[in-house]
Amino acid sequence: MSLVVIGTVAFDAIETPFGKTDKIVGGAATYACLAAAYFYDKVKIVAVAGDDFPQSEIKNFNDHHVDTEGLQIKKGEKSFFWSGKYHNDMNSRDTLATELNVLADFDPIIPENYQDCEFLMLGNLTPKIQQTVIGRFKTRPKLVVMDTMNFWMDIALNDLLETIKMVDVLTVNDAEARQLSGEYSLVKAARKILAMGPKYLIIKKGEHGALLFNEDKIFAAPALPLADVFDPTGAGDTFAGGFIGYMAKVGTVSFNNMKNAIIFGSALASFCVEKFGTEKIRNLTQQEIAARVQEFVSLSKFEIE
Amino acid sequence: MSLVVIGTVAFDAIETPFGKTDKIVGGAATYACLAAAYFYDKVKIVAVAGDDFPQSEIKNFNDHHVDTEGLQIKKGEKSFFWSGKYHNDMNSRDTLATELNVLADFDPIIPENYQDCEFLMLGNLTPKIQQTVIGRFKTRPKLVVMDTMNFWMDIALNDLLETIKMVDVLTVNDAEARQLSGEYSLVKAARKILAMGPKYLIIKKGEHGALLFNEDKIFAAPALPLADVFDPTGAGDTFAGGFIGYMAKVGTVSFNNMKNAIIFGSALASFCVEKFGTEKIRNLTQQEIAARVQEFVSLSKFEIE
Repeated sequence: MSLVVIGTVAFDAIETPFGKTDKIVGGAATYACLAAAYFYDKVKIVAVAGDDFPQSEIKNFNDHHVDTEGLQIKKGEKSFFWSGKYHNDMNSRDTLATELNVLADFDPIIPENYQDCEFLMLGNLTPKIQQTVIGRFKTRPKLVVMDTMNFWMDIALNDLLETIKMVDVLTVNDAEARQLSGEYSLVKAARKILAMGPKYLIIKKGEHGALLFNEDKIFAAPALPLADVFDPTGAGDTFAGGFIGYMAKVGTVSFNNMKNAIIFGSALASFCVEKFGTEKIRNLTQQEIAARVQEFVSLSKFEIE
Repeated sequence: MSLVVIGTVAFDAIETPFGKTDKIVGGAATYACLAAAYFYDKVKIVAVAGDDFPQSEIKNFNDHHVDTEGLQIKKGEKSFFWSGKYHNDMNSRDTLATELNVLADFDPIIPENYQDCEFLMLGNLTPKIQQTVIGRFKTRPKLVVMDTMNFWMDIALNDLLETIKMVDVLTVNDAEARQLSGEYSLVKAARKILAMGPKYLIIKKGEHGALLFNEDKIFAAPALPLADVFDPTGAGDTFAGGFIGYMAKVGTVSFNNMKNAIIFGSALASFCVEKFGTEKIRNLTQQEIAARVQEFVSLSKFEIE
């Protein structure tokens, strides 16, 4: 039994109103694995990097009990690089540079020892690659969660729709849900997206929390109101990693378990934005996470008889 | 003991993507009184109208047990008129016409029989008038709730700041909280606004729910995700009316009671937007309201040990 995460590992250069970084380690799979590993001890990564990717980062994965057998290191090649600058509201950003490098011809390898995968997280990547990965498991995992973004809706919609059909849970933000469905109302958007295949849809609304849809049921999770959002990079990936890590921990797929998974994922995402990159989510204690989750409980709890 | 609501009564002509109305009865006090009256049977209105205001509307107030002694009818004058058109996203609108008419020299009269007021709702109006009303009560009401809008921040900021200082609860939307405080983060905005005087701040976020701030405590209420928002006019006033109506019913001012008041106010607001104007909130049953409140409970409930 294991949880496999596929996605990017990357170098990011980030500029926010609070400062800027040189190239630091990022990527959807990095954030998701680190987050998932707080809840589940059999997390396995599938990704590709160049030989510029530091050994210390691989050691950091292993220190968090993340299996890196599926992390391909391409000799003489460079890792994926992204650079972006956030606007003052922290809700929008400009991409300054995207260098695909090793990602351009990424062929994901699933090691034999990953075939026990029960929980599969498809981090944001080309839909074709996400689809390939599902097909490379001899037994379909019990729960397949897929993250994607507007970029693929713009340039690879058919591939995206084919891939969406194959997954159990889709996570998108509110703008993406509207784009994908052509509906402004998120309730109508959710109905249309659920009709595309996934049994569950999570709509991420940033500072406004998240909505979980399944059949006619809806759960609204709050976001923790924060005085400072230092760097939003990776918050969505951290959320997804925390979500599926919690699901792997409890083991049973149900709407109620997913509600809690969303709260745990949101709690980890709320840590993520407090520092640049992965800095904050590298060294959390279970006590810190439990305390943060309790903040979500008291934030949203009310008693009406 | 009573609940007094001051605000506009008006004619509105509304255009939404779903249709348009002729002049229909609206105004902050109209929505707030109708909403409050579902929870509390001693609601009293302070407002002004022209003699074009239909007798049937006054009868409708009375049928809902709203005392109209403080509703001045100005012979030979016309009621306040507003006309607006909502954009396709229903979150923004253009004002097509504003005719102040009787509102231009509104001098609110507080009938002697209103002096038992314990709960005072200051609907959106000139801050000077809101301030005058507070001063006309011989005993300061136990809870003073004030609604306002960006318009007064633009043209009467000093008056607004003076009035805010005198109230217990301020309700604004997120853009207004940012404008009033000069802070983008709603947590920082809330700190600054609470420092201006009010003990409680409610930030209304439309489809994203509402936040209640008091000292270091925060409560996040969800909004009910709706397939169709037919007409948002009056939703904020209905929310405020439901909020203070529930507070008057329970009688005790506390953070926990305010949490529930926000849920009841949000439930009424969710009805309001389902039809044009006040149509939907004129004829609700207690059973319908209770069922809607239970939707909010199941929407946001999760169990983490």
